[in-house]
Amino acid sequence: MKYFFTLLIFISITASSNAQQQTASSDSAMIASIYYEVMNNSEAHENLRYLCKEIGHRLAGSESADQAIAWGKRTLEAYKPDNVFLMPVEVPHWSRGKMEYGFFESNGKRESVALTALGGSVGTEGKELTAGVVMVKSFDELKALGEEKVKGKIVFFNKAMDPFLINTGAAYGNAYPIRGKGPSEAARYGAVGCIIRSLTMADDKYPHTGGTQYNDSLPRVPAAALSSIDAQVLADAIRSNPDLKFTYYLSAEAYKRREQANVIGEIKGTEFPDEYIIVGGHLDSWDIGEGAHDDGTGIVQSIEVIRALKAIGYKPKHTIRAVLFINEEFGNDGGETYARVVKEKGLKHIAAIESDGGGFSPQGFNTDMTDEQYEKVKSWLPLMEPYNLTRIRRGGSGVDIAPLKNGTIGLFGLMVDGNRYFDFHHSNNDIFENVNKRELDLGAGALTTLIYLIDQKGLE
Amino acid sequence: MKYFFTLLIFISITASSNAQQQTASSDSAMIASIYYEVMNNSEAHENLRYLCKEIGHRLAGSESADQAIAWGKRTLEAYKPDNVFLMPVEVPHWSRGKMEYGFFESNGKRESVALTALGGSVGTEGKELTAGVVMVKSFDELKALGEEKVKGKIVFFNKAMDPFLINTGAAYGNAYPIRGKGPSEAARYGAVGCIIRSLTMADDKYPHTGGTQYNDSLPRVPAAALSSIDAQVLADAIRSNPDLKFTYYLSAEAYKRREQANVIGEIKGTEFPDEYIIVGGHLDSWDIGEGAHDDGTGIVQSIEVIRALKAIGYKPKHTIRAVLFINEEFGNDGGETYARVVKEKGLKHIAAIESDGGGFSPQGFNTDMTDEQYEKVKSWLPLMEPYNLTRIRRGGSGVDIAPLKNGTIGLFGLMVDGNRYFDFHHSNNDIFENVNKRELDLGAGALTTLIYLIDQKGLE
Repeated sequence: MKYFFTLLIFISITASSNAQQQTASSDSAMIASIYYEVMNNSEAHENLRYLCKEIGHRLAGSESADQAIAWGKRTLEAYKPDNVFLMPVEVPHWSRGKMEYGFFESNGKRESVALTALGGSVGTEGKELTAGVVMVKSFDELKALGEEKVKGKIVFFNKAMDPFLINTGAAYGNAYPIRGKGPSEAARYGAVGCIIRSLTMADDKYPHTGGTQYNDSLPRVPAAALSSIDAQVLADAIRSNPDLKFTYYLSAEAYKRREQANVIGEIKGTEFPDEYIIVGGHLDSWDIGEGAHDDGTGIVQSIEVIRALKAIGYKPKHTIRAVLFINEEFGNDGGETYARVVKEKGLKHIAAIESDGGGFSPQGFNTDMTDEQYEKVKSWLPLMEPYNLTRIRRGGSGVDIAPLKNGTIGLFGLMVDGNRYFDFHHSNNDIFENVNKRELDLGAGALTTLIYLIDQKGLE
Repeated sequence: MKYFFTLLIFISITASSNAQQQTASSDSAMIASIYYEVMNNSEAHENLRYLCKEIGHRLAGSESADQAIAWGKRTLEAYKPDNVFLMPVEVPHWSRGKMEYGFFESNGKRESVALTALGGSVGTEGKELTAGVVMVKSFDELKALGEEKVKGKIVFFNKAMDPFLINTGAAYGNAYPIRGKGPSEAARYGAVGCIIRSLTMADDKYPHTGGTQYNDSLPRVPAAALSSIDAQVLADAIRSNPDLKFTYYLSAEAYKRREQANVIGEIKGTEFPDEYIIVGGHLDSWDIGEGAHDDGTGIVQSIEVIRALKAIGYKPKHTIRAVLFINEEFGNDGGETYARVVKEKGLKHIAAIESDGGGFSPQGFNTDMTDEQYEKVKSWLPLMEPYNLTRIRRGGSGVDIAPLKNGTIGLFGLMVDGNRYFDFHHSNNDIFENVNKRELDLGAGALTTLIYLIDQKGLE
């Protein structure tokens, strides 16, 4: 079937009546052949199954991240690009340990809550931490209460993500400071612990983790997230009994930093082998769930780009790299290291594309580039629209590729339907079964198409 | 909070510096207040839970459809529109009965398959039907085999929906004739039965039903759909043993037509009470699963339009109706009857909007209208884009509202992300749990917004 299709493309190209039409027609035909290959023969879904089910979650620094790196290398090698290699990256090593739980007692009844340590949190020193609870919605409310009301208590940030913000990423951005800075802000006023309502749009029983950053000048208090339903239950209980005691136990612990690696597979360019177009995601995940949407999908889509380009026999002009970054979640070491190496070696990167918004239906691309580059990319929309890629937006690309920004490189993020992303993000609900094969494959098609267009037309 | 927000809107309106800006700003503010209301206070998800879990599937003609009609009426009444009433509709009455199963025997081993009767199929006369199998992919292949090869056999149409067709609706349209006409085409060449691969994009064990239409001049043979995985298993078995026998049992039976009803709730217009803008979906579903995406979501979104307009205190100029149509799935009696009544009574309908693509992320609207109307609707895009409604497309609206087409009415279909729709459609997998609250609510916001814009600006 594939060869018949190639024949069709040939006919379609030769039927064009002038040079410009021929180019447009040739581009259309090549993009059709990319999508035909991906939608019929993609291995992204099966690769994701393996990553999620045979390896599982893979926090940077962990043994399962070592396994994921080895898997990434051998999976890329199987598709026979010109080179596959590892780039050493130093990463932190933190573990939530074997046990975490929480409960409160109210009217003589013990009520358990679903809770998970925030990434980087200290543990509770091998014993339960019990204290009264101060519930607030913001740093301003906390400040207004001050040390008098907060000292010796557990601060409970009970703030839901705003459902009225149509862009869920913006709602996450708004809510994020509470997770990132909440524990240290609580400690500033003498709190002994900090719990937060999970950053999610869903009403469910899954607690969502994610990195927190302690302020070095303040005591480090144990920090955890409650599921949105449990946050509501606790809030109701506090309203009827402001003196209730909350108890939790976290076995989290930090270890010495260690070396892991970015995994890179590349197809050498035929005309400009020293100019690079890269596509990637992050191989690490948080240490609960399976890191399916965050960011297993970006990883297997990036690998699929290499597989699909090889399968259709495309010979790129520029060198195309799939980069599986390590440790986006907890310090961006993979992205920082990659950008440093590129700078040290003077490797000219003309574009970098990231998929880290989950394996949902693609809608277009977020971009971070010059106005001229942006206008050029927008001129490609007619070629993309048949594939439901209708939006090229300014702003946002990806955390891993952001350190490459230098005024000339074009940065892109795959724009997907983000409505469900934060239902899964950083939780035990982020599993393989919640990724739709078709949506995943459409994303791989979109990434491959963009690589093709940049390779053919450049960004200047 | 709501009143504070209304105040904000007021400030935003009065701050405008000239009339045109003021209108645009007033529209933006009103649309914001619609979305604010829906995203924070929507009852669509809870209404869907009730419809799916307390009533369940509701094939037209069935007792559960009677319950759904009563539920639709009392649910609309609870939101206190000016009128709620039933419009009698005659519908077919068919039942799959209590039992259906299938298996094949190959190499002495019996292999069960997941199978479901197509809607309207005859049963197997109280006994198992066993015969050899002829496997084809198309009517052309069937014709080429002819009576000699087909007579006395079961025809197995083993044709997958085309994953390369980016619009899943188009892929469904392409595959649909096999379900609609396959059984009679098989009978044309003397087949005793017909089985098909389910019309779905998913590889799973759910068989998908849907209406089939017998040709009155040909014998009626029992017709059923196999899950996509079982179709593949059977195909492999046939390839290794072309003489295998397939057996199935269907208890399906048709009964006398009976009367049910469309449910209509309306808010009377203040300026043009005799001009109507309607929004609807279909209350009936197939008789497996829960009819969640098809079309419980369209129903609860249409009801939510009424709730939201009342909640924000909007007084429409035109009369706004939510119409819960009965029997879209098996003859479109609700839509045909509604259009006939409208014509008989001379009720001027300026626009009809349908939501019947599932409760997925809305992207814009499909339209069926004059060029002038289309250009006018497109000019509203800047007001819709903040809510991710970026696409106004020509072609397609909805089955229920199609009979209203008269050259002046504007017909709209809510355009949603359709990638997952056919994973659920007409199967036991179409359940409440597979509908995302946020996506459902965004659809209700989109419908209410469009109603508001048409009400304010008309379609002339």
